[in-house]
Amino acid sequence: MSKCRVIIPATQTTILPVRLRRTLESPYPLSLDEIRCAACLIREDACKKNLQIVFNCITLREPQKRDYQAYKHGQCPRPYRRAFAVLLDTNSPGSVIEVIVNLNTVRVEDWNKIDDVVPTLTPTDLELVERIARSHPEVVKACQGLGIQDMSKVFFDSWAIGFDKRWGRERRLQQGLPYYRLSQDDNQYAHPLDFTVIADTNNEEILSVDLHQVDGERAPLPLEEHNYLPSFIQPGYPANTLKPINITQPDGVSFCLDGNVLSWAGYKMHVGFNYREGIVLSDVSIFDPADNRQRPLFYRLSVAEMVVPYGCPEPPHPTKQAFDIGEYGLGLMTNPLRSGCDCKGVITYLNATMTDHRGNPYTIKNAICIHEEDNGLLFKHTDFRDGQSLTARDRRLIISQVVTAANYDYGFYHIFTLDGTYKLEIKLTGILNTSPLSVQQPAHPYGTEVAKDVTAHNHQHIFSLRVDPEVDGAENAVLQCDQESVSDRNGYGNGFICRKTLVRGPCDPAMARSWDIINPTKLNPTCNMPVGYKILNSQYPGMLAQPESIVHQRAAFATKPLWVVPYQDHRLYPAGYYVPQSSGESNQPGNETIIDLAKRDYPHSGDIVCYIQFGVTHFPRTEDFPIMPVEQVGVTLRASNFFRQSPVLWVPTMVIESSESS
Amino acid sequence: MSKCRVIIPATQTTILPVRLRRTLESPYPLSLDEIRCAACLIREDACKKNLQIVFNCITLREPQKRDYQAYKHGQCPRPYRRAFAVLLDTNSPGSVIEVIVNLNTVRVEDWNKIDDVVPTLTPTDLELVERIARSHPEVVKACQGLGIQDMSKVFFDSWAIGFDKRWGRERRLQQGLPYYRLSQDDNQYAHPLDFTVIADTNNEEILSVDLHQVDGERAPLPLEEHNYLPSFIQPGYPANTLKPINITQPDGVSFCLDGNVLSWAGYKMHVGFNYREGIVLSDVSIFDPADNRQRPLFYRLSVAEMVVPYGCPEPPHPTKQAFDIGEYGLGLMTNPLRSGCDCKGVITYLNATMTDHRGNPYTIKNAICIHEEDNGLLFKHTDFRDGQSLTARDRRLIISQVVTAANYDYGFYHIFTLDGTYKLEIKLTGILNTSPLSVQQPAHPYGTEVAKDVTAHNHQHIFSLRVDPEVDGAENAVLQCDQESVSDRNGYGNGFICRKTLVRGPCDPAMARSWDIINPTKLNPTCNMPVGYKILNSQYPGMLAQPESIVHQRAAFATKPLWVVPYQDHRLYPAGYYVPQSSGESNQPGNETIIDLAKRDYPHSGDIVCYIQFGVTHFPRTEDFPIMPVEQVGVTLRASNFFRQSPVLWVPTMVIESSESS
Repeated sequence: MSKCRVIIPATQTTILPVRLRRTLESPYPLSLDEIRCAACLIREDACKKNLQIVFNCITLREPQKRDYQAYKHGQCPRPYRRAFAVLLDTNSPGSVIEVIVNLNTVRVEDWNKIDDVVPTLTPTDLELVERIARSHPEVVKACQGLGIQDMSKVFFDSWAIGFDKRWGRERRLQQGLPYYRLSQDDNQYAHPLDFTVIADTNNEEILSVDLHQVDGERAPLPLEEHNYLPSFIQPGYPANTLKPINITQPDGVSFCLDGNVLSWAGYKMHVGFNYREGIVLSDVSIFDPADNRQRPLFYRLSVAEMVVPYGCPEPPHPTKQAFDIGEYGLGLMTNPLRSGCDCKGVITYLNATMTDHRGNPYTIKNAICIHEEDNGLLFKHTDFRDGQSLTARDRRLIISQVVTAANYDYGFYHIFTLDGTYKLEIKLTGILNTSPLSVQQPAHPYGTEVAKDVTAHNHQHIFSLRVDPEVDGAENAVLQCDQESVSDRNGYGNGFICRKTLVRGPCDPAMARSWDIINPTKLNPTCNMPVGYKILNSQYPGMLAQPESIVHQRAAFATKPLWVVPYQDHRLYPAGYYVPQSSGESNQPGNETIIDLAKRDYPHSGDIVCYIQFGVTHFPRTEDFPIMPVEQVGVTLRASNFFRQSPVLWVPTMVIESSESS
Repeated sequence: MSKCRVIIPATQTTILPVRLRRTLESPYPLSLDEIRCAACLIREDACKKNLQIVFNCITLREPQKRDYQAYKHGQCPRPYRRAFAVLLDTNSPGSVIEVIVNLNTVRVEDWNKIDDVVPTLTPTDLELVERIARSHPEVVKACQGLGIQDMSKVFFDSWAIGFDKRWGRERRLQQGLPYYRLSQDDNQYAHPLDFTVIADTNNEEILSVDLHQVDGERAPLPLEEHNYLPSFIQPGYPANTLKPINITQPDGVSFCLDGNVLSWAGYKMHVGFNYREGIVLSDVSIFDPADNRQRPLFYRLSVAEMVVPYGCPEPPHPTKQAFDIGEYGLGLMTNPLRSGCDCKGVITYLNATMTDHRGNPYTIKNAICIHEEDNGLLFKHTDFRDGQSLTARDRRLIISQVVTAANYDYGFYHIFTLDGTYKLEIKLTGILNTSPLSVQQPAHPYGTEVAKDVTAHNHQHIFSLRVDPEVDGAENAVLQCDQESVSDRNGYGNGFICRKTLVRGPCDPAMARSWDIINPTKLNPTCNMPVGYKILNSQYPGMLAQPESIVHQRAAFATKPLWVVPYQDHRLYPAGYYVPQSSGESNQPGNETIIDLAKRDYPHSGDIVCYIQFGVTHFPRTEDFPIMPVEQVGVTLRASNFFRQSPVLWVPTMVIESSESS
């Protein structure tokens, strides 16, 4: 029993389950009190079971879709609020415990041990390597070999291991990538070291120090300074080169936030957030004046996985294949934001609540940014006969977060515009991952020499947007749309059509191909075609790793621009729930990958889910170092015969008479 | 002699050539006085030759590149200012006269008759069809057949003819597409008529009224109203749904305009404008603090051609293949702009000067808009160890124009950002071209029924951005960049590279392919690779018309995403100088198409020009009618190992200490 007391802080014991706010809507993220309640119940159970546990996560267990939809339609009471927790039993490495807590009945409902899986690395886990590697004799020796005496100047970025056959999933692993700093705020990525360390996360132990020599030679430590902080660099532009651009909203914002329910210009949605995906938008609907009703669009939208495979074939680079969502968690890595720096205008922030290793909640202030922006022309037409113009301006509602994944930084922007379009934009910035070049070793062809004797390797960023559609109702299907010249009755040779094919499972990329998520049960009365939303994805870079490579197996989702799979409750993540050290094999129930979901027998039309992959292949440029100008990628979902006529007709317009302006 | 007096208005005779402003820089568009001077000299010559002429255009004859570059380098005096005019001899239909006037020596230098070509249709030409068709007996009869008695309610949009074998280039042709209006400001495109008229532009004569029956049946006139002007439609959003977003620049703009020379944040360029391409940017350079010098980027940038092929194989639709630049002229169709409607913030406008049929100049007020916008994050990095963030905001300089091409409207936005990127964005809006559906005739598969019995046909918009590069100097070449998995020494299967191939002539599209415009004579000292600018073109839709079709021949440029051809003075237009009624064959000197230029023998590296094609295939949606929400397409040119290090290092930054925000 004494063991248990260690992990139940005395200050937490006063949190009584009865204090839970029972008004929370189903998709609302767990509150501080709910996390405290769940942790308390779990600790009690662990104590009874005589287990020494560490919390990996406590997050919302979303209700079953059937129950939640029935509740929304007034057919049954609100579903129970539940928490889902992943625990580590410190005496059972290589397995986890999954716990489900019912927050309404205040009971642990499920307690389940899962073997042969490795959970997310948390920020606390990631502090480990630097702490234990600096004083490790082999590490010190490896550094001395490069002339380094002061180990306080050596820093380690912790990465997941990819998959290392030496240990499989018997141990919970991290690899540490070492860098050197010349001074306190010096940019360490200009000084990469030529070895990596492998650490056991649970046992806090360095398992291996791997030197990466080329022809038996070590790469010298690059010492050239490449800084970006203002304290280091010359003033750039002369003063006043860029004069202020002020964006003000004297009457306030046009959106309304009621709890986490966000309304704006006909749209209505719920803004959620969790440790893994960060922002989750659910119950997204739009008001259609022609029908005088709120029409559903998406049951749930989130960035559910991503992978960053590196393209240098020499160790340790084949193990660099960051799954920033499944291995680290976008929620956990989220920046607190500040107006003027991250966004301009009138900003509304939401905090996020995360859980630490002891089961205690903590807050990331200003984790979610909600704001509006002017978005240029929405439409314009001039009658050339009398010169009269009609024009309207578009604007966008943006729900965003910024995350830091060691060297890289990503901005995620969920954007809605007045024409009924949803767009996910992702901004890639931060600092390139770098490696030292040994004497005579060229950076080419696997990288670019971005600073003297420092190479940045070719890599890809492939993101997976999970779209659980609800286009005008629950029954949806996907049509693949291909533009095609016709052979018959085309005497002038100009004829072409859009060939539409019902698809499911994995879909291949092709030039100018798009997909429509349709509702086959709802016809648009104007054109007599099913209502739909089009997926526009022109930024699928392909997966360049070979089919037998580990990353190709682990990130099978990324090998196709689109997967259409059956909906199943709680199956959100295309690389599985437990991603670290996964090998891509099919796995236990609850840990299915997209391959497992696609293998099932399911109809083309019904409750389907789309995973849309897009991103960029990054061949680094000298312009990307020491700090990377934003590179933007994105995917768009746009109304396609969803509305009976142009949805911009109800936006305020401006008429310009010819005499006014010419 | 009396004939001549008719076309020399008395008010113009006082304009003396000596009043020319001799300070104009070489790429500056012709001034009012210069046009008057040129017209005066041309009229005098025409009078001497006893010709009755109509002016088709008077525009700047840009100096030869060799002379202009020598002048810029201080090696020779400023090149002469010259005007280029196209004239119609009213007694010689089917030919034109090209005249070159030297505005410094005040002399006509060249007077050249060209046979078998047809010049641009001007706004005055385009007024013709409606004027003469309304009273034409056959047209009246065709309308009566649809129940129309009041011909003042019938309107004709004039279009170029594509190519009509019935007349070839013997006559100068237009086709008129008829519409009906229920009331004065009614949207005519909801009421298309089922015939077209063919008119002779020079003789002001209706040549044919072509009824387009289906199975011997005429399509009834669609009478359902579909309006967008505020006087017709219900108030949309409740008042105050969208609260104002104000954008102010209390200290003014950050750019500086000296004549037409625009400077902003290191960039320097000349803003030109002509009747054909509209905005022309030339002498584009950027200051590089690392080199402490202005480095050239582009000798000249413009949208040089575009084509809109329609995909319905039934007449008259195969003849609908609008080349809005070569057939109508983006300059001529340019809107006068107004702050708040077309752009927000502090706007600087430039007027444009065009020439009418009598050789008189006229002004389009506010034709060019120059303004700055905030552009979100330029970069961000957070040190996860101490939580300190560094961030900078990007902004963009935008040089834009909006044109109206009958039913369609296009916004052209030339955009520069702080990381050295140039992006051309084009916004497509306005109203769909429509046709009536006869009873039982489905809109599918060649169109979409956007209103009852009204179809909008499948079509493409393919634009051609002409880039005359000067990347760090005159000698440039193009590398095709393909991402490629490697087979050798790739035991882990993760290795991939960028394969680069020197190319010229037409280049094929491929997934994730890009091109680098490099200067093979200048190495970036950081990475030891040639300096370059990357062409990012993910929006090439392919040309869907079959190879033997007329539009495929005429718009050969649009069949490839990129052409790399040799530079030749005055060869700007990829479909030739004389586009109306062209058949795509090789033609006279001066009227070469891109096919002719690509056939020449030229080295891969040297003074090359790139034509970049991009756009969209538009399968109309019900959302696009009666007014089309903006659809955006674009192409990007981005520094690629051009700078030694990140060009954003000299942009003002904001440091966020961890304690401030978390």
